[in-house]
Amino acid sequence: MATPLTDTSRLCIHTITTKPWTLEVAVPRYAAAGVKGVTVWRQAIEGRDPAEAGRMIRDHGLSVVSLCRGGFLAAASREGRASAVDENRRCIDQAAALGAPTIVLVCGAVPGQPLAESRRQITEGLAELAAHAAASGVRLAIEPLHPMYADDRSAINTVAQARAVCRELGSPWVGVALDVYHVWWDDSLEREIESCGREGTLFAFHICDWRTPTTDLLNDRGLMGEGCIPVRRIRGWVEAAGFGGYNEVEIFSNRRWAGDQDLFLADIKAAYLKHS
Amino acid sequence: MATPLTDTSRLCIHTITTKPWTLEVAVPRYAAAGVKGVTVWRQAIEGRDPAEAGRMIRDHGLSVVSLCRGGFLAAASREGRASAVDENRRCIDQAAALGAPTIVLVCGAVPGQPLAESRRQITEGLAELAAHAAASGVRLAIEPLHPMYADDRSAINTVAQARAVCRELGSPWVGVALDVYHVWWDDSLEREIESCGREGTLFAFHICDWRTPTTDLLNDRGLMGEGCIPVRRIRGWVEAAGFGGYNEVEIFSNRRWAGDQDLFLADIKAAYLKHS
Repeated sequence: MATPLTDTSRLCIHTITTKPWTLEVAVPRYAAAGVKGVTVWRQAIEGRDPAEAGRMIRDHGLSVVSLCRGGFLAAASREGRASAVDENRRCIDQAAALGAPTIVLVCGAVPGQPLAESRRQITEGLAELAAHAAASGVRLAIEPLHPMYADDRSAINTVAQARAVCRELGSPWVGVALDVYHVWWDDSLEREIESCGREGTLFAFHICDWRTPTTDLLNDRGLMGEGCIPVRRIRGWVEAAGFGGYNEVEIFSNRRWAGDQDLFLADIKAAYLKHS
Repeated sequence: MATPLTDTSRLCIHTITTKPWTLEVAVPRYAAAGVKGVTVWRQAIEGRDPAEAGRMIRDHGLSVVSLCRGGFLAAASREGRASAVDENRRCIDQAAALGAPTIVLVCGAVPGQPLAESRRQITEGLAELAAHAAASGVRLAIEPLHPMYADDRSAINTVAQARAVCRELGSPWVGVALDVYHVWWDDSLEREIESCGREGTLFAFHICDWRTPTTDLLNDRGLMGEGCIPVRRIRGWVEAAGFGGYNEVEIFSNRRWAGDQDLFLADIKAAYLKHS
Protein backbone atom coordinates (compact mmCIF):
# COMPACT_ATOMS: atom_id res chain seq x y z
CA MET A 1 0.00 0.00 0.00
CA ALA A 2 1.36 3.43 -0.94
CA THR A 3 1.90 5.96 1.83
CA PRO A 4 -0.84 8.62 1.97
CA LEU A 5 -0.25 11.71 -0.13
CA THR A 6 0.47 14.80 1.95
CA ASP A 7 0.52 17.46 -0.76
CA THR A 8 -0.63 18.16 -4.30
CA SER A 9 2.80 18.29 -5.88
CA ARG A 10 1.96 15.34 -8.12
CA LEU A 11 -1.70 16.18 -8.71
CA CYS A 12 -2.67 16.56 -12.35
CA ILE A 13 -6.19 17.13 -13.67
CA HIS A 14 -7.58 16.30 -17.10
CA THR A 15 -9.38 19.28 -18.62
CA ILE A 16 -12.35 17.00 -19.40
CA THR A 17 -12.82 16.49 -15.66
CA THR A 18 -14.09 20.08 -15.38
CA LYS A 19 -15.63 20.06 -18.84
CA PRO A 20 -17.84 23.15 -18.34
CA TRP A 21 -14.71 25.29 -17.89
CA THR A 22 -12.74 26.55 -20.88
CA LEU A 23 -8.97 26.10 -20.70
CA GLU A 24 -8.62 29.80 -19.83
CA VAL A 25 -10.95 29.40 -16.85
CA ALA A 26 -9.65 26.02 -15.70
CA VAL A 27 -5.91 26.67 -15.63
CA PRO A 28 -5.85 29.62 -13.17
CA ARG A 29 -8.28 27.78 -10.89
CA TYR A 30 -6.25 24.60 -10.97
CA ALA A 31 -3.17 26.68 -10.17
CA ALA A 32 -4.89 28.45 -7.28
CA ALA A 33 -5.92 25.05 -5.87
CA GLY A 34 -2.31 23.84 -5.88
CA VAL A 35 -2.70 21.50 -8.87
CA LYS A 36 0.67 21.06 -10.58
CA GLY A 37 -0.11 19.35 -13.86
CA VAL A 38 -2.75 19.41 -16.55
CA THR A 39 -3.59 16.87 -19.21
CA VAL A 40 -5.13 18.73 -22.09
CA TRP A 41 -7.98 17.24 -24.07
CA ARG A 42 -7.89 18.20 -27.73
CA GLN A 43 -11.33 19.82 -27.64
CA ALA A 44 -10.02 22.19 -24.93
CA ILE A 45 -7.56 23.70 -27.43
CA GLU A 46 -9.76 23.59 -30.50
CA GLY A 47 -9.35 26.79 -32.47
CA ARG A 48 -6.39 27.86 -30.31
CA ASP A 49 -2.68 27.98 -31.05
CA PRO A 50 -1.31 24.96 -29.14
CA ALA A 51 2.03 26.66 -28.50
CA GLU A 52 0.27 29.63 -26.91
CA ALA A 53 -1.96 27.33 -24.85
CA GLY A 54 1.15 25.52 -23.60
CA ARG A 55 2.82 28.82 -22.66
CA MET A 56 -0.30 29.97 -20.83
CA ILE A 57 -0.37 26.73 -18.82
CA ARG A 58 3.33 26.96 -17.91
CA ASP A 59 3.00 30.66 -17.06
CA HIS A 60 0.56 29.57 -14.36
CA GLY A 61 3.18 27.23 -12.94
CA LEU A 62 1.62 24.04 -14.26
CA SER A 63 3.21 21.30 -16.36
CA VAL A 64 1.52 19.96 -19.46
CA VAL A 65 1.41 16.24 -18.65
CA SER A 66 -0.28 14.72 -21.71
CA LEU A 67 -2.39 15.50 -24.72
CA CYS A 68 -5.55 13.45 -24.75
CA ARG A 69 -6.26 11.75 -27.06
CA GLY A 70 -4.97 10.09 -30.18
CA GLY A 71 -5.58 6.61 -31.47
CA PHE A 72 -8.60 5.03 -33.19
CA LEU A 73 -6.16 3.25 -35.48
CA ALA A 74 -8.42 0.29 -36.28
CA ALA A 75 -10.67 0.78 -39.28
CA ALA A 76 -12.49 -1.45 -41.74
CA SER A 77 -10.79 0.01 -44.84
CA ARG A 78 -7.21 0.70 -45.81
CA GLU A 79 -8.23 4.33 -46.46
CA GLY A 80 -9.72 4.59 -42.98
CA ARG A 81 -6.51 3.31 -41.42
CA ALA A 82 -4.32 5.65 -43.49
CA SER A 83 -6.48 8.60 -42.55
CA ALA A 84 -6.23 7.62 -38.86
CA VAL A 85 -2.43 7.54 -39.11
CA ASP A 86 -2.50 11.02 -40.67
CA GLU A 87 -4.73 12.32 -37.91
CA ASN A 88 -2.32 10.91 -35.32
CA ARG A 89 0.60 12.65 -37.05
CA ARG A 90 -1.28 15.93 -36.61
CA CYS A 91 -1.91 15.00 -32.99
CA ILE A 92 1.82 14.43 -32.47
CA ASP A 93 2.57 17.84 -34.02
CA GLN A 94 -0.01 19.42 -31.75
CA ALA A 95 1.49 17.75 -28.69
CA ALA A 96 4.95 18.93 -29.65
CA ALA A 97 3.68 22.50 -30.08
CA LEU A 98 1.80 22.35 -26.81
CA GLY A 99 4.87 20.99 -25.05
CA ALA A 100 3.09 17.78 -24.03
CA PRO A 101 5.63 14.98 -23.63
CA THR A 102 3.00 12.27 -24.06
CA ILE A 103 -0.15 11.48 -26.05
CA VAL A 104 -2.75 9.17 -24.55
CA LEU A 105 -4.11 6.70 -27.10
CA VAL A 106 -7.58 5.20 -27.18
CA CYS A 107 -6.66 2.68 -29.79
CA GLY A 108 -9.98 1.91 -31.46
CA ALA A 109 -12.05 -1.10 -32.47
CA VAL A 110 -14.47 -1.88 -35.26
CA PRO A 111 -17.72 -3.54 -34.14
CA GLY A 112 -17.82 -7.04 -35.57
CA GLN A 113 -14.19 -7.09 -36.68
CA PRO A 114 -12.22 -9.69 -34.68
CA LEU A 115 -10.41 -7.99 -31.82
CA ALA A 116 -7.14 -9.67 -32.79
CA GLU A 117 -7.43 -8.10 -36.26
CA SER A 118 -8.05 -4.68 -34.71
CA ARG A 119 -4.99 -5.15 -32.50
CA ARG A 120 -2.94 -6.02 -35.59
CA GLN A 121 -4.13 -2.82 -37.31
CA ILE A 122 -3.34 -0.78 -34.19
CA THR A 123 0.16 -2.25 -34.06
CA GLU A 124 0.73 -1.45 -37.74
CA GLY A 125 -0.52 2.10 -37.28
CA LEU A 126 1.78 2.65 -34.32
CA ALA A 127 4.70 1.21 -36.27
CA GLU A 128 4.06 3.90 -38.91
CA LEU A 129 3.88 6.61 -36.26
CA ALA A 130 6.82 5.67 -34.04
CA ALA A 131 9.49 7.49 -36.06
CA HIS A 132 7.48 10.72 -36.18
CA ALA A 133 6.83 10.46 -32.45
CA ALA A 134 10.55 9.98 -31.77
CA ALA A 135 11.53 12.86 -34.05
CA SER A 136 8.98 15.07 -32.28
CA GLY A 137 9.99 13.98 -28.78
CA VAL A 138 6.44 12.85 -28.02
CA ARG A 139 5.69 9.52 -26.35
CA LEU A 140 2.65 7.46 -27.34
CA ALA A 141 0.86 5.87 -24.39
CA ILE A 142 -1.54 3.01 -25.16
CA GLU A 143 -4.41 3.08 -22.70
CA PRO A 144 -5.95 -0.35 -22.16
CA LEU A 145 -9.70 0.30 -21.98
CA HIS A 146 -12.23 -1.61 -19.88
CA PRO A 147 -13.69 -4.63 -21.74
CA MET A 148 -17.04 -2.85 -21.82
CA TYR A 149 -15.48 -0.61 -24.51
CA ALA A 150 -14.20 -3.50 -26.65
CA ASP A 151 -16.99 -3.07 -29.20
CA ASP A 152 -16.02 0.28 -30.71
CA ARG A 153 -13.44 2.10 -28.57
CA SER A 154 -10.50 -0.18 -27.94
CA ALA A 155 -9.50 -3.71 -28.84
CA ILE A 156 -6.77 -3.32 -26.21
CA ASN A 157 -8.48 -4.17 -22.94
CA THR A 158 -5.73 -5.39 -20.65
CA VAL A 159 -2.26 -4.25 -19.66
CA ALA A 160 -0.95 -7.56 -21.01
CA GLN A 161 -2.31 -6.72 -24.49
CA ALA A 162 -0.82 -3.21 -24.35
CA ARG A 163 2.53 -4.67 -23.32
CA ALA A 164 2.39 -7.15 -26.20
CA VAL A 165 2.02 -4.25 -28.66
CA CYS A 166 4.90 -2.38 -26.98
CA ARG A 167 7.13 -5.44 -27.17
CA GLU A 168 6.33 -5.97 -30.82
CA LEU A 169 7.21 -2.35 -31.65
CA GLY A 170 10.29 -2.20 -29.44
CA SER A 171 10.27 1.61 -29.48
CA PRO A 172 11.12 3.63 -26.36
CA TRP A 173 8.47 6.09 -27.56
CA VAL A 174 5.58 3.63 -27.18
CA GLY A 175 4.31 2.69 -23.72
CA VAL A 176 1.24 2.32 -21.51
CA ALA A 177 -1.19 4.74 -19.85
CA LEU A 178 -2.69 2.99 -16.84
CA ASP A 179 -6.17 4.11 -15.75
CA VAL A 180 -7.51 2.42 -12.63
CA TYR A 181 -11.07 2.61 -14.00
CA HIS A 182 -10.21 0.29 -16.86
CA VAL A 183 -7.97 -2.26 -15.19
CA TRP A 184 -8.84 -2.47 -11.49
CA TRP A 185 -10.69 -5.80 -11.88
CA ASP A 186 -7.76 -7.61 -13.56
CA ASP A 187 -6.29 -10.36 -11.34
CA SER A 188 -2.90 -10.00 -13.04
CA LEU A 189 -2.71 -6.24 -12.50
CA GLU A 190 0.06 -6.10 -9.90
CA ARG A 191 2.28 -8.43 -11.95
CA GLU A 192 1.54 -6.54 -15.19
CA ILE A 193 2.43 -3.20 -13.59
CA GLU A 194 5.70 -4.71 -12.35
CA SER A 195 6.43 -5.87 -15.89
CA CYS A 196 5.72 -2.40 -17.31
CA GLY A 197 8.15 -0.99 -14.79
CA ARG A 198 10.84 -3.48 -15.78
CA GLU A 199 10.22 -2.78 -19.46
CA GLY A 200 10.25 1.00 -18.99
CA THR A 201 6.78 1.46 -20.48
CA LEU A 202 4.75 2.94 -17.62
CA PHE A 203 4.09 6.39 -19.11
CA ALA A 204 0.99 7.65 -17.28
CA PHE A 205 -1.28 6.93 -14.31
CA HIS A 206 -4.94 7.99 -14.25
CA ILE A 207 -7.20 7.84 -11.21
CA CYS A 208 -10.91 8.04 -10.41
CA ASP A 209 -13.36 5.51 -8.94
CA TRP A 210 -16.07 3.01 -9.98
CA ARG A 211 -19.46 3.82 -8.46
CA THR A 212 -22.04 1.23 -7.38
CA PRO A 213 -24.40 1.37 -9.11
CA THR A 214 -22.85 2.82 -12.24
CA THR A 215 -25.69 4.25 -14.30
CA ASP A 216 -23.91 5.22 -17.52
CA LEU A 217 -21.25 3.31 -19.42
CA LEU A 218 -19.24 6.47 -20.14
CA ASN A 219 -20.06 9.37 -17.89
CA ASP A 220 -20.71 8.10 -14.37
CA ARG A 221 -17.20 7.86 -12.98
CA GLY A 222 -16.68 8.62 -9.32
CA LEU A 223 -14.23 10.64 -7.33
CA MET A 224 -11.59 8.60 -5.53
CA GLY A 225 -13.24 7.11 -2.42
CA GLU A 226 -16.73 7.07 -3.94
CA GLY A 227 -16.40 3.55 -5.28
CA CYS A 228 -14.78 0.13 -5.10
CA ILE A 229 -11.38 0.70 -6.74
CA PRO A 230 -8.39 0.27 -4.41
CA VAL A 231 -6.76 3.43 -5.79
CA ARG A 232 -4.08 3.75 -3.11
CA ARG A 233 -3.11 0.10 -3.38
CA ILE A 234 -2.74 0.40 -7.15
CA ARG A 235 -0.72 3.61 -6.71
CA GLY A 236 1.54 1.57 -4.46
CA TRP A 237 2.11 -0.98 -7.23
CA VAL A 238 2.74 1.79 -9.75
CA GLU A 239 5.29 3.49 -7.50
CA ALA A 240 6.95 0.17 -6.65
CA ALA A 241 7.38 -0.25 -10.41
CA GLY A 242 9.39 2.98 -10.46
CA PHE A 243 6.75 5.43 -11.65
CA GLY A 244 7.36 8.93 -10.37
CA GLY A 245 5.03 10.92 -12.60
CA TYR A 246 1.74 12.65 -11.95
CA ASN A 247 -1.42 11.16 -10.51
CA GLU A 248 -3.92 12.32 -13.11
CA VAL A 249 -7.53 12.80 -12.10
CA GLU A 250 -9.72 11.93 -15.09
CA ILE A 251 -13.42 11.87 -14.30
CA PHE A 252 -16.29 11.86 -16.78
CA SER A 253 -19.43 12.57 -14.81
CA ASN A 254 -22.71 14.01 -16.05
CA ARG A 255 -23.61 14.51 -12.39
CA ARG A 256 -20.47 16.48 -11.57
CA TRP A 257 -20.50 18.45 -14.83
CA ALA A 258 -24.03 19.61 -13.96
CA GLY A 259 -22.81 21.02 -10.63
CA ASP A 260 -20.57 23.85 -9.48
CA GLN A 261 -17.05 23.28 -10.83
CA ASP A 262 -15.34 25.24 -8.03
CA LEU A 263 -16.92 22.94 -5.45
CA PHE A 264 -15.98 19.94 -7.58
CA LEU A 265 -12.36 21.10 -7.72
CA ALA A 266 -12.31 21.40 -3.93
CA ASP A 267 -13.78 17.89 -3.68
CA ILE A 268 -11.14 16.55 -6.08
CA LYS A 269 -8.34 17.97 -3.97
CA ALA A 270 -9.81 16.58 -0.74
CA ALA A 271 -10.46 13.14 -2.27
CA TYR A 272 -7.00 13.11 -3.78
CA LEU A 273 -5.35 13.59 -0.40
CA LYS A 274 -7.71 11.28 1.49
CA HIS A 275 -8.24 8.36 -0.90
CA SER A 276 -5.47 8.24 -3.52
CA MET B 1 -16.65 -21.86 -37.18
CA ALA B 2 -19.66 -23.98 -36.27
CA THR B 3 -21.95 -25.13 -39.06
CA PRO B 4 -25.18 -23.10 -39.28
CA LEU B 5 -28.09 -24.38 -37.21
CA THR B 6 -30.87 -25.83 -39.32
CA ASP B 7 -33.49 -26.47 -36.65
CA THR B 8 -34.53 -25.46 -33.14
CA SER B 9 -33.86 -28.82 -31.50
CA ARG B 10 -31.22 -27.27 -29.22
CA LEU B 11 -32.91 -23.90 -28.71
CA CYS B 12 -33.58 -23.00 -25.09
CA ILE B 13 -34.99 -19.69 -23.85
CA HIS B 14 -34.56 -18.11 -20.42
CA THR B 15 -37.91 -17.06 -18.97
CA ILE B 16 -36.41 -13.62 -18.21
CA THR B 17 -35.97 -13.08 -21.95
CA THR B 18 -39.75 -12.71 -22.30
CA LYS B 19 -40.15 -11.17 -18.86
CA PRO B 20 -43.66 -9.74 -19.45
CA TRP B 21 -44.99 -13.31 -19.87
CA THR B 22 -45.80 -15.48 -16.87
CA LEU B 23 -44.46 -19.04 -16.98
CA GLU B 24 -47.95 -20.27 -17.88
CA VAL B 25 -48.09 -17.95 -20.89
CA ALA B 26 -44.47 -18.42 -21.98
CA VAL B 27 -44.22 -22.22 -22.01
CA PRO B 28 -47.03 -23.00 -24.49
CA ARG B 29 -45.77 -20.23 -26.78
CA TYR B 30 -42.19 -21.46 -26.63
CA ALA B 31 -43.49 -24.96 -27.43
CA ALA B 32 -45.56 -23.73 -30.36
CA ALA B 33 -42.48 -21.96 -31.73
CA GLY B 34 -40.44 -25.17 -31.63
CA VAL B 35 -38.32 -24.18 -28.65
CA LYS B 36 -37.12 -27.33 -26.88
CA GLY B 37 -35.69 -26.14 -23.59
CA VAL B 38 -36.44 -23.55 -20.94
CA THR B 39 -34.20 -22.09 -18.25
CA VAL B 40 -36.43 -21.00 -15.42
CA TRP B 41 -35.68 -17.85 -13.47
CA ARG B 42 -36.66 -18.13 -9.82
CA GLN B 43 -39.05 -15.18 -10.00
CA ALA B 44 -40.99 -17.05 -12.72
CA ILE B 45 -41.93 -19.75 -10.20
CA GLU B 46 -42.38 -17.55 -7.15
CA GLY B 47 -45.46 -18.68 -5.24
CA ARG B 48 -45.72 -21.83 -7.36
CA ASP B 49 -44.98 -25.47 -6.54
CA PRO B 50 -41.70 -26.09 -8.42
CA ALA B 51 -42.54 -29.76 -9.01
CA GLU B 52 -45.81 -28.77 -10.67
CA ALA B 53 -44.08 -26.09 -12.73
CA GLY B 54 -41.57 -28.71 -13.89
CA ARG B 55 -44.37 -31.12 -14.87
CA MET B 56 -46.18 -28.38 -16.76
CA ILE B 57 -43.02 -27.58 -18.73
CA ARG B 58 -42.34 -31.24 -19.57
CA ASP B 59 -46.01 -31.78 -20.47
CA HIS B 60 -45.48 -29.20 -23.20
CA GLY B 61 -42.56 -31.21 -24.55
CA LEU B 62 -39.84 -28.91 -23.20
CA SER B 63 -36.85 -29.79 -21.06
CA VAL B 64 -36.00 -27.79 -17.96
CA VAL B 65 -32.42 -26.82 -18.72
CA SER B 66 -31.38 -24.77 -15.68
CA LEU B 67 -32.68 -22.86 -12.71
CA CYS B 68 -31.43 -19.31 -12.71
CA ARG B 69 -29.96 -18.19 -10.41
CA GLY B 70 -28.11 -19.01 -7.21
CA GLY B 71 -24.89 -17.58 -5.89
CA PHE B 72 -24.12 -14.25 -4.19
CA LEU B 73 -21.84 -16.17 -1.86
CA ALA B 74 -19.51 -13.26 -1.05
CA ALA B 75 -20.57 -11.15 1.92
CA ALA B 76 -18.88 -8.82 4.36
CA SER B 77 -19.95 -10.76 7.47
CA ARG B 78 -19.78 -14.40 8.51
CA GLU B 79 -23.56 -14.27 9.07
CA GLY B 80 -24.10 -12.92 5.57
CA ARG B 81 -22.07 -15.75 4.08
CA ALA B 82 -23.87 -18.42 6.15
CA SER B 83 -27.23 -17.03 5.14
CA ALA B 84 -26.17 -17.08 1.47
CA VAL B 85 -25.19 -20.75 1.77
CA ASP B 86 -28.62 -21.50 3.31
CA GLU B 87 -30.36 -19.67 0.49
CA ASN B 88 -28.38 -21.70 -2.04
CA ARG B 89 -29.41 -24.93 -0.31
CA ARG B 90 -33.03 -23.87 -0.82
CA CYS B 91 -32.21 -23.09 -4.43
CA ILE B 92 -30.77 -26.60 -4.89
CA ASP B 93 -33.94 -28.11 -3.36
CA GLN B 94 -36.04 -26.01 -5.68
CA ALA B 95 -34.01 -27.11 -8.72
CA ALA B 96 -34.37 -30.74 -7.71
CA ALA B 97 -38.15 -30.34 -7.33
CA LEU B 98 -38.38 -28.52 -10.66
CA GLY B 99 -36.30 -31.21 -12.34
CA ALA B 100 -33.58 -28.73 -13.34
CA PRO B 101 -30.25 -30.55 -13.66
CA THR B 102 -28.24 -27.34 -13.26
CA ILE B 103 -28.26 -24.08 -11.30
CA VAL B 104 -26.60 -21.02 -12.81
CA LEU B 105 -24.57 -19.09 -10.24
CA VAL B 106 -23.94 -15.36 -10.20
CA CYS B 107 -21.31 -15.63 -7.54
CA GLY B 108 -21.37 -12.20 -5.89
CA ALA B 109 -18.96 -9.45 -4.90
CA VAL B 110 -18.82 -6.89 -2.14
CA PRO B 111 -17.96 -3.35 -3.29
CA GLY B 112 -14.60 -2.40 -1.80
CA GLN B 113 -13.71 -5.91 -0.65
CA PRO B 114 -10.69 -7.22 -2.58
CA LEU B 115 -11.87 -9.42 -5.43
CA ALA B 116 -9.47 -12.18 -4.39
CA GLU B 117 -11.12 -12.24 -0.93
CA SER B 118 -14.57 -12.46 -2.55
CA ARG B 119 -13.34 -15.35 -4.69
CA ARG B 120 -12.07 -17.11 -1.55
CA GLN B 121 -15.49 -16.68 0.08
CA ILE B 122 -17.24 -17.96 -3.05
CA THR B 123 -14.99 -21.03 -3.10
CA GLU B 124 -15.69 -21.71 0.58
CA GLY B 125 -19.43 -21.34 0.04
CA LEU B 126 -19.38 -23.75 -2.89
CA ALA B 127 -17.32 -26.22 -0.86
CA GLU B 128 -20.12 -26.21 1.72
CA LEU B 129 -22.76 -26.71 -0.97
CA ALA B 130 -21.12 -29.37 -3.13
CA ALA B 131 -22.28 -32.37 -1.10
CA HIS B 132 -25.89 -31.18 -1.03
CA ALA B 133 -25.74 -30.52 -4.77
CA ALA B 134 -24.39 -34.02 -5.40
CA ALA B 135 -27.00 -35.65 -3.13
CA SER B 136 -29.71 -33.71 -4.97
CA GLY B 137 -28.36 -34.48 -8.43
CA VAL B 138 -28.07 -30.77 -9.22
CA ARG B 139 -24.98 -29.28 -10.88
CA LEU B 140 -23.71 -25.83 -9.90
CA ALA B 141 -22.54 -23.75 -12.88
CA ILE B 142 -20.34 -20.74 -12.10
CA GLU B 143 -21.06 -17.99 -14.61
CA PRO B 144 -18.09 -15.68 -15.12
CA LEU B 145 -19.59 -12.20 -15.37
CA HIS B 146 -18.30 -9.31 -17.49
CA PRO B 147 -15.76 -7.16 -15.61
CA MET B 148 -18.30 -4.32 -15.59
CA TYR B 149 -20.12 -6.35 -12.92
CA ALA B 150 -17.05 -6.87 -10.71
CA ASP B 151 -18.18 -4.23 -8.23
CA ASP B 152 -21.21 -5.94 -6.74
CA ARG B 153 -22.32 -8.92 -8.84
CA SER B 154 -19.42 -11.23 -9.40
CA ALA B 155 -15.77 -11.37 -8.44
CA ILE B 156 -15.45 -14.14 -11.04
CA ASN B 157 -14.98 -12.32 -14.32
CA THR B 158 -13.10 -14.74 -16.56
CA VAL B 159 -13.38 -18.39 -17.52
CA ALA B 160 -9.88 -18.86 -16.09
CA GLN B 161 -11.07 -17.68 -12.66
CA ALA B 162 -14.12 -19.96 -12.81
CA ARG B 163 -11.89 -22.88 -13.77
CA ALA B 164 -9.57 -22.12 -10.86
CA VAL B 165 -12.50 -22.42 -8.45
CA CYS B 166 -13.62 -25.68 -10.11
CA ARG B 167 -10.12 -27.13 -9.84
CA GLU B 168 -9.86 -26.17 -6.18
CA LEU B 169 -13.18 -27.87 -5.40
CA GLY B 170 -12.58 -30.93 -7.57
CA SER B 171 -16.27 -31.84 -7.57
CA PRO B 172 -17.98 -33.17 -10.71
CA TRP B 173 -21.02 -31.14 -9.58
CA VAL B 174 -19.30 -27.78 -9.97
CA GLY B 175 -18.64 -26.36 -13.44
CA VAL B 176 -18.96 -23.32 -15.68
CA ALA B 177 -21.86 -21.54 -17.42
CA LEU B 178 -20.48 -19.71 -20.43
CA ASP B 179 -22.37 -16.61 -21.59
CA VAL B 180 -20.99 -14.95 -24.72
CA TYR B 181 -22.03 -11.52 -23.40
CA HIS B 182 -19.63 -11.77 -20.48
CA VAL B 183 -16.59 -13.36 -22.10
CA TRP B 184 -16.54 -12.52 -25.81
CA TRP B 185 -13.74 -9.93 -25.41
CA ASP B 186 -11.32 -12.31 -23.65
CA ASP B 187 -8.28 -13.12 -25.81
CA SER B 188 -7.84 -16.48 -24.07
CA LEU B 189 -11.45 -17.57 -24.64
CA GLU B 190 -10.88 -20.33 -27.20
CA ARG B 191 -8.13 -21.89 -25.10
CA GLU B 192 -10.19 -21.58 -21.90
CA ILE B 193 -13.20 -23.26 -23.52
CA GLU B 194 -10.94 -26.10 -24.69
CA SER B 195 -9.70 -26.48 -21.11
CA CYS B 196 -13.25 -26.59 -19.76
CA GLY B 197 -14.01 -29.33 -22.25
CA ARG B 198 -10.97 -31.35 -21.18
CA GLU B 199 -11.86 -30.86 -17.53
CA GLY B 200 -15.51 -31.79 -18.07
CA THR B 201 -16.81 -28.52 -16.63
CA LEU B 202 -18.68 -26.93 -19.53
CA PHE B 203 -22.21 -27.08 -18.11
CA ALA B 204 -24.14 -24.39 -20.00
CA PHE B 205 -23.91 -22.05 -22.99
CA HIS B 206 -25.82 -18.74 -23.12
CA ILE B 207 -26.16 -16.56 -26.21
CA CYS B 208 -27.21 -13.01 -27.06
CA ASP B 209 -25.31 -10.04 -28.52
CA TRP B 210 -23.55 -6.81 -27.51
CA ARG B 211 -25.12 -3.73 -29.08
CA THR B 212 -23.21 -0.62 -30.18
CA PRO B 213 -23.91 1.67 -28.49
CA THR B 214 -25.00 -0.14 -25.34
CA THR B 215 -27.10 2.30 -23.34
CA ASP B 216 -27.68 0.38 -20.11
CA LEU B 217 -25.23 -1.73 -18.14
CA LEU B 218 -27.82 -4.42 -17.44
CA ASN B 219 -30.81 -4.33 -19.74
CA ASP B 220 -29.66 -3.45 -23.25
CA ARG B 221 -28.58 -6.81 -24.57
CA GLY B 222 -29.13 -7.55 -28.22
CA LEU B 223 -30.48 -10.44 -30.22
CA MET B 224 -27.84 -12.54 -31.96
CA GLY B 225 -26.75 -10.62 -35.06
CA GLU B 226 -27.55 -7.20 -33.61
CA GLY B 227 -24.08 -6.68 -32.23
CA CYS B 228 -20.37 -7.44 -32.32
CA ILE B 229 -20.15 -10.86 -30.65
CA PRO B 230 -18.98 -13.69 -32.92
CA VAL B 231 -21.68 -16.01 -31.56
CA ARG B 232 -21.30 -18.72 -34.19
CA ARG B 233 -17.53 -18.77 -33.86
CA ILE B 234 -17.81 -19.17 -30.09
CA ARG B 235 -20.45 -21.91 -30.52
CA GLY B 236 -17.89 -23.66 -32.72
CA TRP B 237 -15.32 -23.56 -29.92
CA VAL B 238 -17.91 -24.80 -27.43
CA GLU B 239 -18.92 -27.71 -29.66
CA ALA B 240 -15.29 -28.55 -30.44
CA ALA B 241 -14.84 -28.82 -26.66
CA GLY B 242 -17.50 -31.54 -26.62
CA PHE B 243 -20.52 -29.54 -25.50
CA GLY B 244 -23.78 -30.98 -26.82
CA GLY B 245 -26.29 -29.14 -24.64
CA TYR B 246 -28.73 -26.36 -25.37
CA ASN B 247 -28.00 -22.96 -26.85
CA GLU B 248 -29.75 -20.78 -24.30
CA VAL B 249 -31.07 -17.39 -25.37
CA GLU B 250 -30.79 -15.04 -22.41
CA ILE B 251 -31.59 -11.43 -23.26
CA PHE B 252 -32.31 -8.61 -20.82
CA SER B 253 -33.71 -5.75 -22.85
CA ASN B 254 -35.90 -2.89 -21.69
CA ARG B 255 -36.54 -2.18 -25.36
CA ARG B 256 -37.70 -5.71 -26.16
CA TRP B 257 -39.68 -6.10 -22.93
CA ALA B 258 -41.63 -2.95 -23.86
CA GLY B 259 -42.64 -4.50 -27.20
CA ASP B 260 -44.85 -7.38 -28.35
CA GLN B 261 -43.48 -10.64 -26.94
CA ASP B 262 -44.93 -12.81 -29.73
CA LEU B 263 -43.04 -10.77 -32.31
CA PHE B 264 -39.93 -10.93 -30.11
CA LEU B 265 -40.20 -14.73 -29.94
CA ALA B 266 -40.41 -14.90 -33.74
CA ASP B 267 -37.35 -12.63 -33.96
CA ILE B 268 -35.47 -14.86 -31.50
CA LYS B 269 -36.14 -17.94 -33.59
CA ALA B 270 -35.10 -16.23 -36.82
CA ALA B 271 -31.94 -14.75 -35.26
CA TYR B 272 -31.11 -18.11 -33.68
CA LEU B 273 -31.12 -19.86 -37.05
CA LYS B 274 -29.41 -17.03 -38.94
CA HIS B 275 -26.73 -15.80 -36.52
CA SER B 276 -26.02 -18.43 -33.84
